[in-house]
Order: sequence, then structure tokens, then C-alpha cells
Amino acid sequence: MTKKLVFGHSNPDTDTIVSAKAYSYLLNQLGEDTEAVALGTPNEETQYALRHFDEPAPRVITAAKPEVDQVALVDHNEAAQSVSDLAEVEITNIVDHHKFGLTTSTPLFIRAEALGSAASILVKMFDENKVEIPAKLAGLMLSAIISDTLLLKSPTTTEFDKIAVKTLAEIADVDFESYGLEMLKAGTNLSTKSELELIDGDAKSFEMGGKTLRIGQVNTVDIAEVFERQAALEDAMKAENAKNGYDAFLFVVTNILTSDSELLLVGDVTEQVEKAFAGKLVNNRLALPGVVSRKKQVVPPLTAAF
Amino acid sequence: MTKKLVFGHSNPDTDTIVSAKAYSYLLNQLGEDTEAVALGTPNEETQYALRHFDEPAPRVITAAKPEVDQVALVDHNEAAQSVSDLAEVEITNIVDHHKFGLTTSTPLFIRAEALGSAASILVKMFDENKVEIPAKLAGLMLSAIISDTLLLKSPTTTEFDKIAVKTLAEIADVDFESYGLEMLKAGTNLSTKSELELIDGDAKSFEMGGKTLRIGQVNTVDIAEVFERQAALEDAMKAENAKNGYDAFLFVVTNILTSDSELLLVGDVTEQVEKAFAGKLVNNRLALPGVVSRKKQVVPPLTAAF
Repeated sequence: MTKKLVFGHSNPDTDTIVSAKAYSYLLNQLGEDTEAVALGTPNEETQYALRHFDEPAPRVITAAKPEVDQVALVDHNEAAQSVSDLAEVEITNIVDHHKFGLTTSTPLFIRAEALGSAASILVKMFDENKVEIPAKLAGLMLSAIISDTLLLKSPTTTEFDKIAVKTLAEIADVDFESYGLEMLKAGTNLSTKSELELIDGDAKSFEMGGKTLRIGQVNTVDIAEVFERQAALEDAMKAENAKNGYDAFLFVVTNILTSDSELLLVGDVTEQVEKAFAGKLVNNRLALPGVVSRKKQVVPPLTAAF
Repeated sequence: MTKKLVFGHSNPDTDTIVSAKAYSYLLNQLGEDTEAVALGTPNEETQYALRHFDEPAPRVITAAKPEVDQVALVDHNEAAQSVSDLAEVEITNIVDHHKFGLTTSTPLFIRAEALGSAASILVKMFDENKVEIPAKLAGLMLSAIISDTLLLKSPTTTEFDKIAVKTLAEIADVDFESYGLEMLKAGTNLSTKSELELIDGDAKSFEMGGKTLRIGQVNTVDIAEVFERQAALEDAMKAENAKNGYDAFLFVVTNILTSDSELLLVGDVTEQVEKAFAGKLVNNRLALPGVVSRKKQVVPPLTAAF
């Protein structure tokens, strides 16, 4: 059996790190030889979860070759979010809950569903394959769902996510609400982060209407505190646009307690952004009440406007 | 609940027609409102199976709009093989066993696996969702697997396909070997077909080494009978090359009883074809013993030779 590496997207979040660990564990239980790795160091929220459940962070890689010829992707499927040499290896497995932009030369295994997290899909797959989820892993998978759904409050949350959280909380023996809030708060310690870390830590690139948009997001318990650094944030966004050829940088600051966001824009796409969110940018900022999900509430209206 | 249409690829084969029916049935059992339709009239093999299990052929459509806004694809995922207006509707579900060439703007449900047929994946999905397969549908799903794997002899056959065929044969209460052979034979009545229907009915185009190859295939129980029409077949292949700019037309005639094929070539790629199959073309023909799968046994050696 050829060894496979299992990994999530670059700028890893909790769901991506945990889903790689969970899928690797499942594949190994089913007789494959895999290793979960990551395309970056876990963020503070993920580190809190790993510490809490006493699990190691995956080894960090930047390329799959020459180590392996086959890879399994979790929580992403597009080359732009993956290893630098994705085109040179065979993708044999994908578990994902995002939109698809994928071309393969051979048939492969794909399990995709519009659930709140990739970890939720894996909960189904453990059940279907009659593999038990160990308690520590259950705690991590619970963390992944809580992270991606902001404690089941994001509009991406499905009925199955709620069931999965309850099931996993029982296996892991934690109170998911109090644990979840502590974990989310651990990820909102923004004061120690540089402006670049804030805007780009979780950022993804999107092609819309011939333009390249970079969209970053941070969670906080105090939006105003983040915007105290607005001038420095804008400088960092300008520099990133120039360095990487982005047409625009959108930075979404989300309050996890109130489930609202505020957007900061640097780049010449004012018209499209105002159209997308039916509002006027003032001082490059736009309030997005009720918006917490980049995937469901930021990218689709932007795509439509472009 | 919005109504969805469920369909397979154009030029429908047995797996595509049956998988649409099976997936529509499963989705409806799970509470959705779907209808299985087809992008063409079932071929003679499929008609034999539908008659045998007393099931109606799906209604034929050419476009999804204005009837529905959402579609579920089975046995294909690429726009070139689908309804003309695929770009105007939302793909919400895909069940497929082919390579992927897919871009969506939203997350969706995908179940893909490199099994012998799409129907085999659906066997797993019925089981996972704890939905019983009705006897008639089991007979059709059996037919689909037998068709795509040539009675489990094609190299695309997996261990799961074999298990699925046995399970389905029990539910449908048929002897799968004798039934399967009769069904495959029903699809080999080539005498009523024109030369163009024979060479191009199942043909696909491939780019190799800067050349465009068209590769068609028919199943038969008597290769010699097909080659009685060799001169007329070559004329049709020449005409297709000229009309469509193909550099060469390869026509593979496969004996489903012996699992052997014979190739007919029209086009200036003799050297590459002889290299690919390690033989000499005589009278434009080359015997391919043991070859039944275009996907696994014809395209890869040709790709390597070019």
C-alpha cells in the first residue's frame, strides 16, 4: 500500500487541522497507510483545542513530492489553497464542504456535503464504516464543528451538525457550550498578532469577474478594538495587494458574541462591494449585521455582484 | 422542497439510465421531490433490462430550465456530457465514478468513488441511509453493474462490484450470469445500425501528442460479422475524420463472450498504434486479445505511445 499524506488547506483553521487527523485515522483503521500533515502552524484556537485534548499538532509540509505520489485532501479541493506541487501528485481522496473547482485525470473518492464543517462529514463516515471515534479525537472533531459554525450559530449550521456536536460531546465527555466558548475566545487574542497575521491568517483568494480578491476574516469579542488599528491594517492590505497582485483585499471582522461583522476594503472594487452588501462604504468600512460566514454570506453576494 | 431533476449523461447507457432512477428513488425516500429523466432514448440493452424488470423508461429532456432550478447528476460531472443549459441551474448532487472536471459556485453533495459503475456507489448509499432496494430496482441496478463491467470481467471491476452484484441478484431473484449475458447480447444487435451509428454511437475524443483521436467501441458476440462491413465502416471513419478534423479514428470491436477486441484504424498514426499494442496492423486491423476497457486498456497505452 502506497503511503498517502492527508492535509487541509493552507492558513489552517481548526476544522482543517482536525479533519486531516480524523480522516487519516479513519483511513488507517480501514487498512491504508496515511499520515496527517498540515500546510502551516495551528492558530491559537486550534492550539487550545489540541492542548485541551492532549493531541499533537500535525507535522508542517509545503510540498507533497518527493515524499509521496498520492494525497488525500480535506476541507478544500482547489489548487490555490493546497500544496505548491498539487499538480504533480495524484489526488485519491477528497472530503470537503466547500464549492468545487477541480479537474482530475482519473476517477477518485469524493465525499462532499454542504454541512457546517468537514469534520461533520467525517462523523458520518466513521459511522458508515463502523469505526469508533476515540474520545480525544471526538473532542477535536467537536472543536472543529464549533469553530466552523461559531457554536452552531452560523447560517452554515445544519441539523446534522447539531446532532454531531451532541454525539461527540458525549464521547469526549465535555460541556460543548462552555468548552466551545472558551475555545473560540482563545482564538480571539488578537493583541499579540501583527497586522499581516490578522488580515492574512485565515485569508483565501477568489477569482471573480476577472479580478483576484483576497478575503480574510478574524473573530473577536470587540470589533472596535480591532479597528483601533485600521490605518496599520490598511497599510498591510495595500502591501499584500501590491506584493501578490490582488485587485482587492477584504478583511471581515466578526463578533462571535453578537454574530455581526464589519468589513474593511482596500482595492478598487468599491462599486461591486457596495452592490453585494447593499450599503455604502464609509472610511473604507461597511457594517455587515448578522454576517458571520465568509462562505455563505460574503462570497456568494460578491460573486453575484461581479 | 424545490423539485429536482436527476439524470445521467447524453448518449445514455444502462448505468446512466438506471442510476438516475435509483438515485431519484433514494432521494424521494429521504424526503426530497425528484424525478429521474434521461438525455436520450435508452439503447437496446437498456430497453431489454427495463422490459425484463417491468420498469418504465425515464422521460427524455434536453434542457433543465424552465422546469427546475436544481439538478442532481449521476454517472457524469462534466458539462460537455450533460444538459445544454447546465450552467444556468444549480447542481446540488453528484454521484459518479469518472474523473472530475467540475466548477461550482456553492457547496454541494458529492459521492464519488472509482467503482465499476455509478449504480455500485448507489448500492452503498442505500445501505448507509438504511433504505431498502425494491426488487425491480435491484434488477436494474444489477443490470447497470453488469453493463459497465461486462459481467464483472472489465479491469474496472472492483471487489465491491462483485459483492453488490451478488446482493442485488438475491433481492431481484435472478441468476445474474445467464440474465447478464442475455442483456449484453440484446445490446449487440448491430445489423439495424448504420456505419456512423456503429463507429460514433459511443465514441469519445482524446488529445494525444498534439493529435486528435476519436475512439469508438461496440460490443458484439461475433467480431467477424462486424468486419463484413469493413469497407463501409472505413468510409464512414474517413468522412468523420475529414468533417471533424480528427487525425485518426480508432474503432474497437469487443467480443463480450471471449473478452477480446479487434481494432480498426483510419488515420496516419500507424506507428503509434503498433507501438501502443505491440503488434502489426494488417489491412488496417489489429487483434487486441484480452482488451475490453477503452478507459483502462486502450487510452493509457495509446497515451504512452504518443
